[in-house]
Amino acid sequence: MKGKFITFEGCEGVGKSRQLKMLQDYLDKNNIKYYLTREPGGSQVSEQIRKVILDGKNVSMTDECEALLYAAARVQLLDEIIKPKLDNGELIFCDRFVDSSLAYQGKARGLGYQFVEKINDYALKNFMPDYTVFLNLPPEQAFLRKGGVDKTDRLELSGIDFHRKVYQGYLELAERYKDRFIVIDASGTKEQTHEKIKNALIERGII
Amino acid sequence: MKGKFITFEGCEGVGKSRQLKMLQDYLDKNNIKYYLTREPGGSQVSEQIRKVILDGKNVSMTDECEALLYAAARVQLLDEIIKPKLDNGELIFCDRFVDSSLAYQGKARGLGYQFVEKINDYALKNFMPDYTVFLNLPPEQAFLRKGGVDKTDRLELSGIDFHRKVYQGYLELAERYKDRFIVIDASGTKEQTHEKIKNALIERGII
Repeated sequence: MKGKFITFEGCEGVGKSRQLKMLQDYLDKNNIKYYLTREPGGSQVSEQIRKVILDGKNVSMTDECEALLYAAARVQLLDEIIKPKLDNGELIFCDRFVDSSLAYQGKARGLGYQFVEKINDYALKNFMPDYTVFLNLPPEQAFLRKGGVDKTDRLELSGIDFHRKVYQGYLELAERYKDRFIVIDASGTKEQTHEKIKNALIERGII
Repeated sequence: MKGKFITFEGCEGVGKSRQLKMLQDYLDKNNIKYYLTREPGGSQVSEQIRKVILDGKNVSMTDECEALLYAAARVQLLDEIIKPKLDNGELIFCDRFVDSSLAYQGKARGLGYQFVEKINDYALKNFMPDYTVFLNLPPEQAFLRKGGVDKTDRLELSGIDFHRKVYQGYLELAERYKDRFIVIDASGTKEQTHEKIKNALIERGII
């Protein structure tokens, strides 16, 4: 019995972490077993790579270097944690995955989807999530709700134009991978968004 | 006027760092300008990546993750430091470069040269050193001379079989890239090896 791998995606400040926490509470209350991880990170090695990627001092990091670091963190998480758990039949949720690289590096950094797909194909060997929950909210609204930019975070410092491109990238990916993407309107209250996510997962037999 | 990019390669303990120091002393005495860097590392971002790669705690690191981290550190050093300096006509020496990935990951880890070439082509866009000084000494002799294994270094902990494969990889690369490789017999004293390196660089009009 193969497990299921569900990723969560969206712009900065859209409430992914909060929604994952609310989903956890629901799953715990209903005795549904799951494993929650995040990208970049989720294993000792990948968390060290995460620190390098997010370090606010690393302003000189090239786009290609960044894309390779994400791929390195991803292949480590995949081979060390995700694949063994899937083989064990587990349900896994992941805060960000390959679509983040496609939206951030491929689209917003201008490297192109094909460029990112190439390293990822190489690293992931065509492994993709079963479903991707996309929290749909334009970055202007997301940052407003978040209360502004975190100045110690290199990615949040990239400016609103960058995050608009990320958002555009996600909309393109949602169109391209229609069967995999679950698009959730995240403009309402956190409780409303939680209900939508929960129902979407139940409808598809995931939980 | 384009500069020149010369890399130094060889097994652990072969005396690369010592030879680079002796070469520096010679160049300084003779007022020959150069820039010395190292791999993985050589820039702020790449040095952070170096720490992750070499950290003795990271025993769970997969071969693919390791190969991607080397490529990430390499593309950063190349784009940030090496290429601008070459465009400026400078002479650059680098302690390790792409041949280390080919010998260590491609050959010794068993990923295959093609696998490593693929990420490196992608990262380096076919950039290669003008010359590669290969310090030729089997790993058994190199480790003996070094006084044993550094137990805080993940790579040195890999065992003698691993380092024998690395050496075999270097011999294959020296054959494959005959025009680029300068093979230096490193079995003599450090002064003898220094003379050989110096003469080889002078013969080719590098210094």
